[in-house]
Amino acid sequence: MPRTVFFISDHTCITAETVGHSLLSQFPSLEFDRITLPFCDSEAKVRAVCPLIAEALARTGKRPLVFSTLADADCRRLLQASGGEVCDLFDAFVERLEDTLGQPSAQAVGRAHGLGDQALGRRRVQALRFTLDTDDGLRPDAYAEAEIILVGVSRSGKTPACLYLALHYGIRAANYPLADEDLARTTLPPALKASRSRLFGLTLNPERLHRLREERRPHSRYASLERCREEVRAAEALFQTEGMRSLDTSALSVEEIATRLLQATGLRRAPW
Amino acid sequence: MPRTVFFISDHTCITAETVGHSLLSQFPSLEFDRITLPFCDSEAKVRAVCPLIAEALARTGKRPLVFSTLADADCRRLLQASGGEVCDLFDAFVERLEDTLGQPSAQAVGRAHGLGDQALGRRRVQALRFTLDTDDGLRPDAYAEAEIILVGVSRSGKTPACLYLALHYGIRAANYPLADEDLARTTLPPALKASRSRLFGLTLNPERLHRLREERRPHSRYASLERCREEVRAAEALFQTEGMRSLDTSALSVEEIATRLLQATGLRRAPW
Repeated sequence: MPRTVFFISDHTCITAETVGHSLLSQFPSLEFDRITLPFCDSEAKVRAVCPLIAEALARTGKRPLVFSTLADADCRRLLQASGGEVCDLFDAFVERLEDTLGQPSAQAVGRAHGLGDQALGRRRVQALRFTLDTDDGLRPDAYAEAEIILVGVSRSGKTPACLYLALHYGIRAANYPLADEDLARTTLPPALKASRSRLFGLTLNPERLHRLREERRPHSRYASLERCREEVRAAEALFQTEGMRSLDTSALSVEEIATRLLQATGLRRAPW
Repeated sequence: MPRTVFFISDHTCITAETVGHSLLSQFPSLEFDRITLPFCDSEAKVRAVCPLIAEALARTGKRPLVFSTLADADCRRLLQASGGEVCDLFDAFVERLEDTLGQPSAQAVGRAHGLGDQALGRRRVQALRFTLDTDDGLRPDAYAEAEIILVGVSRSGKTPACLYLALHYGIRAANYPLADEDLARTTLPPALKASRSRLFGLTLNPERLHRLREERRPHSRYASLERCREEVRAAEALFQTEGMRSLDTSALSVEEIATRLLQATGLRRAPW
């Protein structure tokens, strides 16, 4: 019977899940039952979840793991007594930070999404709007406002990367698909010429492109390996003759693509 | 001069940033200079970043903070000797996890985005495609495939929430905007009737809606406070007469909205 893992937080649990996922991925042969309990933002709520941990222990015979982010020290003490193996982010680091920074922590619940984040929230929603409005080559007239413009053939990963940059970092990311007429030229499409410094090419290996396109339109000319090879060759030639930076997305997740783009361009990446 | 904070990881740094952001938000009166160094996935690369930490100490006179996620124990030892106050996720928890789980950790770099995540990546990209295809009431004929359908007036936060659910959790989330003709009725719009159990209403206070719409179309009838009040009243009446679950998004971030929706519906939330 798989061991139970709890993610418990006074807020969304996104940090607790991120932490737990990172750590558990180092034990790839084990299976876990995962239970997420967000918004445990009072002693009463933490008291109410402790019996779930005891029950999981009794049911599985294995000590449950608990990944938690509880800003309040009293809530953490309650959880520590639950019988689970509790890995709390604040327990682990907050005292050392208080010592180094020379002041006590606020112990304030939900602080990571406090007032300062309203400006971030607004910036992200505006960036998202921009990204949706300019997706897939729509509205090149708005490129003057773009912080980055991803360029590549259909299915090279432009849209997910743009949306990730907008939603996470509030970056206004546009994307332009290289169509047949663009690939027949050896110079930049006219819509892109004024934005040269903000262009970034995405490419991928033709076999992967073929598989992705087969999912969308099976057995089509569009998805054929031959056509994918031609398009990738033409796109990469364009990036090279125009001196454009580019990234091979074949083996990368959306997060990895976004991180590489931020690293290469120096765009501000932090959500603060 | 602000203290320097480094985020260092053998992978994207998203976990290290999430951890550091959570912890530093408990010291709201302090300012920090933040430097993110992703893909430090070898001893040579970690050796190369250590002098940056020493330089920051010399420049600011303040011991830099380092939030890191380095799976490799040798890399962690190098970083610990850098002179920064190093808060490493693996140092803090991995030994306890090894003891509890009864096996050594893989110490494998980038494991959190290993093979298992390819299925996730595919699911997320497919969900994103679905969400874009059905955004803003497009293609109600596809609602049979939706896991959740957000319903609300224009600017109630439907699109960002849907994109977040798709990008993070691979959830096929559609959204339907309540237009004038929908608000004039007291029953569900015809397009929604067959999907009743998967509908979720979003609402918000009329003053906030007014501000959001003013940003889009200043001084328009669409943005007027009076109009916003009418629409919100009609939407909430619809949710109530139809027995629809609903959420007030007025004070919530995108992450908070997504978390509340997952909590209320029981949709699987974990990216694994």
